[in-house]
Amino acid sequence: MADIAEAPPVPVVDVPALTALLDGTYAEVRALTRKRLVEYAGVLEDQREMDSAAFRERVKEVVVELAGTGQTGLGFPTEYGGGGDIGASIAAFETMGFGDLSVLVKVGVQFGLFGGAILQLGTKRHHDAYLTDLIKADLLGCFAMTETGHGSNVQALGTVATYDLETREFVITTPDDHARKDYIGNAAAHARLAVVFAQLEIGGRSEGVHAFVVPIRDEDGNVLPGVRIADDGRKIGLNGVDNGRIWFDGVRIPRENLLNRYADVTETGVYTSEIDNPDRRFFTMLGTLVQGRVCVGGAGINASKVALAVATRYALGRRQFGNPGGGEEILLDYGLHQRRLFPLIARTYALHFAQEVLAGELHAVFSATELVDERTRRALESRAAGTKALGTWHASETIQECREACGGAGYLSANRFDALRADTDVFTTFEGDNHILLQLVAKGLLTDYSSSFGELDQLGMVRFVAGLAVDTVIERTAVHKLLERIKDVVPGWDDAESKGDVDAGLLDPEYHLTMFRWREEHMLSGVARRLKRGMDSDMEPAEVFSRCQDHVIGAARAHVERLVLEAFVAKVAAMPEGGNRTALNLLCDLYALTTIEADRGWWMEHGRLSSQRSKAISREIGDLCRKVRPMAESLVDAFAVPAEMQAAEMLAPGTREGDRADA
Amino acid sequence: MADIAEAPPVPVVDVPALTALLDGTYAEVRALTRKRLVEYAGVLEDQREMDSAAFRERVKEVVVELAGTGQTGLGFPTEYGGGGDIGASIAAFETMGFGDLSVLVKVGVQFGLFGGAILQLGTKRHHDAYLTDLIKADLLGCFAMTETGHGSNVQALGTVATYDLETREFVITTPDDHARKDYIGNAAAHARLAVVFAQLEIGGRSEGVHAFVVPIRDEDGNVLPGVRIADDGRKIGLNGVDNGRIWFDGVRIPRENLLNRYADVTETGVYTSEIDNPDRRFFTMLGTLVQGRVCVGGAGINASKVALAVATRYALGRRQFGNPGGGEEILLDYGLHQRRLFPLIARTYALHFAQEVLAGELHAVFSATELVDERTRRALESRAAGTKALGTWHASETIQECREACGGAGYLSANRFDALRADTDVFTTFEGDNHILLQLVAKGLLTDYSSSFGELDQLGMVRFVAGLAVDTVIERTAVHKLLERIKDVVPGWDDAESKGDVDAGLLDPEYHLTMFRWREEHMLSGVARRLKRGMDSDMEPAEVFSRCQDHVIGAARAHVERLVLEAFVAKVAAMPEGGNRTALNLLCDLYALTTIEADRGWWMEHGRLSSQRSKAISREIGDLCRKVRPMAESLVDAFAVPAEMQAAEMLAPGTREGDRADA
Repeated sequence: MADIAEAPPVPVVDVPALTALLDGTYAEVRALTRKRLVEYAGVLEDQREMDSAAFRERVKEVVVELAGTGQTGLGFPTEYGGGGDIGASIAAFETMGFGDLSVLVKVGVQFGLFGGAILQLGTKRHHDAYLTDLIKADLLGCFAMTETGHGSNVQALGTVATYDLETREFVITTPDDHARKDYIGNAAAHARLAVVFAQLEIGGRSEGVHAFVVPIRDEDGNVLPGVRIADDGRKIGLNGVDNGRIWFDGVRIPRENLLNRYADVTETGVYTSEIDNPDRRFFTMLGTLVQGRVCVGGAGINASKVALAVATRYALGRRQFGNPGGGEEILLDYGLHQRRLFPLIARTYALHFAQEVLAGELHAVFSATELVDERTRRALESRAAGTKALGTWHASETIQECREACGGAGYLSANRFDALRADTDVFTTFEGDNHILLQLVAKGLLTDYSSSFGELDQLGMVRFVAGLAVDTVIERTAVHKLLERIKDVVPGWDDAESKGDVDAGLLDPEYHLTMFRWREEHMLSGVARRLKRGMDSDMEPAEVFSRCQDHVIGAARAHVERLVLEAFVAKVAAMPEGGNRTALNLLCDLYALTTIEADRGWWMEHGRLSSQRSKAISREIGDLCRKVRPMAESLVDAFAVPAEMQAAEMLAPGTREGDRADA
Repeated sequence: MADIAEAPPVPVVDVPALTALLDGTYAEVRALTRKRLVEYAGVLEDQREMDSAAFRERVKEVVVELAGTGQTGLGFPTEYGGGGDIGASIAAFETMGFGDLSVLVKVGVQFGLFGGAILQLGTKRHHDAYLTDLIKADLLGCFAMTETGHGSNVQALGTVATYDLETREFVITTPDDHARKDYIGNAAAHARLAVVFAQLEIGGRSEGVHAFVVPIRDEDGNVLPGVRIADDGRKIGLNGVDNGRIWFDGVRIPRENLLNRYADVTETGVYTSEIDNPDRRFFTMLGTLVQGRVCVGGAGINASKVALAVATRYALGRRQFGNPGGGEEILLDYGLHQRRLFPLIARTYALHFAQEVLAGELHAVFSATELVDERTRRALESRAAGTKALGTWHASETIQECREACGGAGYLSANRFDALRADTDVFTTFEGDNHILLQLVAKGLLTDYSSSFGELDQLGMVRFVAGLAVDTVIERTAVHKLLERIKDVVPGWDDAESKGDVDAGLLDPEYHLTMFRWREEHMLSGVARRLKRGMDSDMEPAEVFSRCQDHVIGAARAHVERLVLEAFVAKVAAMPEGGNRTALNLLCDLYALTTIEADRGWWMEHGRLSSQRSKAISREIGDLCRKVRPMAESLVDAFAVPAEMQAAEMLAPGTREGDRADA
């Protein structure tokens, strides 16, 4: 075997066509959003130059102006001035991930969380009262769910809404500091209304968590009596968003302020709901808010594109060590640098297409004229949770790696990494902590999306699984079937080594998919067995869960990685032959093989990867990186990140004398 | 095998004794530094509240005041007002890693880089002229080495210092924007002097890079003629340090301003040096500056302690999901949470002790009355480079993980993670990019610390290794000897599985050490073989290196991880029996096994870990975490991070009603 591979033919990437592929159905919306971002590019500098107080006002101004253009209301019904297209609203929001993320998050708070709750949990009286004004951003609101002591466990919230039969009002109360609302965007300065999640109590009986519209400021911005608000103060990022804490000291609101789409209280204090099971009711309500997770994941993936565009350009323009052989040497020609950036470019493409599938499913479910069946909705929520987790972790990892790959220049705020990383950092823990979200994914898989217990109740899951017959659990997964199938689709997979050909099928998508599926199924059935075995012993359910927790999360991650790969493979398979298909094929292989490499210990432990083949995968990744190298610039160009959103203070590639900035 | 392990006996940790062990020789200096940090704790709030301009002045004020106490001058000779104890100065600096890191870095710039260059590269005339004033911080200076286009390749700097025979002056010139000095701390506002690294040219002949003292501002702070300075502007962190860019337009300085300890230029323009070989001369000069890397690594390790103290406390006070079985349930009781934090606590202890060894070696070399042999110095530099790389990556990873483990509370600046992560982020790329530093480590290992070529010249390394006989290279490593030894020290290591006992020796430090050593030696000899094979083919040296680069860095990392483990094992072995030894023994096992687990793919690929044993290691880690759990609070208490340096806005453990902050 020669050590020097022949120079591979370089596929010609058609950048505009690749951008069009990425933009997909909503190309026009995305193009318009990019135009808006450029119009408001000054906000990137404001973010660096202004103090928090001034920047908050600036961001509010931008959000109000954007609302005036219709940019932020695409997902609302047309009769209230919205665009009537949920898919378009997601595309617009995702694309805003290229720009300042305080603007993005404030848009998300106002139109996604606050507006979304009014739309999804309210009925016509709430829509008529609030939607027109909130879509125009004449009425700003906040979404008061999270409490200091209850981050991810919404069912255990401490805030109480007691129905007062005499006055026909709800009385909202914060019993202690653990139940104060915390990290609430728009709360510290701008919101006049809050959608407050609280335990509904009628005549001493608790009906679980419901959402209420509670005025917190008057039209002049004064905090109303009985409401206390404190500023959360400076944060790692997103300082253009006014996060705050809220306490309610017996605040009275009319009965009609209950958002009553799924449950209501009559004047005489009778609780009614079309959904009998309280858990099902709760998760149906919560499920309507899934769009927030979808949007955050998409924004994270797009923020990664900005970082990769900046870092790739930098590496193309950067002189490293002198090349004594003469000639220019380029940082991106170093094997290590390719290894650092290209797998992240590949994973960005993979996640982009997975996000596209998810957004399409969301659009279908929420645009359907009749209610979609519950199982489909639970599956959508699970996919949203998993994609959000992987998309936001990817953003953190990618932005950090890109910043380090730009050395000192990456440390300067003008070069974008500062705000990108600081602002996206909380994406991994808000809209559901990523670990908790993956537990939700695992729960769905293990219980086949049964809704008979709480979304986030781990002990419920343990008991549920333990209550099944072992065979049911194992049958639900498909390890054995898969093993058979593997042998069909990838002949010689198992004994490639013995035949002396460890490279057989390494670049076959069927091989990749089979590996991903096998891992997922094996991990899931393993978790099920461990949960059952634990419960069969004397262990407490909490202890059983605690000991399996990393296994549970690993199984969920394996599941989502499989969905991501499937989306990428399907996308490539549907492309016409040509340079772009060849390029994306390489990236798809790179995504699949680097994912296998990262977890190769697991596959080896489970006898599905020989040591020789494992080494062959690492070699192949090096080869793939060298093949990607000549296309790297086109691949990040296709992201269509406006120049104004990229680095401001780097020496441009090719210029040796000039300097874009303070020369 | 029962799934429920018996409750292990909980060792009683003696916290003050453990702190004393960590503090080591310089306990008094460290205690005094902690006291100073508490006195200046207000600077942590200033960092959040002040704008960059005001905060820079505040940090300068603090640094000047600290200088007045003697805190920052411990490493300088007593005759100029210093403390005459290099080890003490490192201990003091490391401990400052608990506090505001702009203060730390400005101290590092003024006393470590600027002062260190004057001390180490200058001679009596420079010492007499500057040391007394700079130790008192009456004279502020900067260290102008890095250029925009030359981050890590000091030998290729573009700035030129031409000797003018007529006027007996050097003329300092910046030829183009790639050669402008960049990211220079103290340059944008405060430095009056710069130590400038430039190519020395005499009569058209280049003598390589030398250091010169160049005045850049007058006593009133006005920039001097011929000098242009621009502000680097806002950065990700460390905004209390005034980083800037400097251009020199033919600035003239007297001949005596050459820092002439290792080389000089006579009045008549004759270049003289006691070191004939230009490369050796250059690396001898650079080597004297090793203390900066040692200090940065130590500061990163200590910053990690702050993050772990905050996150561990938070996890002890945090309610997660309701425990239907009743009773308090605590976030830190979750298996995943233990898995996230405890291996990082273990690695922090490991790195602390490795850093202690390094600082001791540095003290010995630099306090020696006669020049230590070159090989020892190169080995010290290599150890400093490797420890800095692992210590600063550890800081980034740990602080980020801790921030995420604290959810929304972790995102609030008051809770420390904001500044900790933003400020330490650049540690991974300054004082030498970590990847480049690991290449330096590998070079030292492969060439047995030969100084016959450049510190950072990869192609030189390729050629050097290729020039050796294969046997020489392989002999230098000791793979075969080690394999024999393994069988002696861990009987049955290879065939434990066949004997049905996959757990044999899992907690034996000899097993851990042997595994670490074997990996290191195997990777090193593998790199050597690949480099030779590449050069024997037709490949360009640059291509040979590029393809091996990740392997080179992997070998270096394996080497440093071995050094870290050895330091930890030796420390524990020297402890008296008792609770503290038991506790540290557990942590040492946890460090070793999580390091093996993280790279288990490699060991399996190379036939040194069976799949069964690999799984056994993961199980054992879970067990170790459960054993560490009851000691967790004591283990972070022993770090002795002052309460004032920890989180300000978290609900304290145990308090359900109270709130330390804005309640």
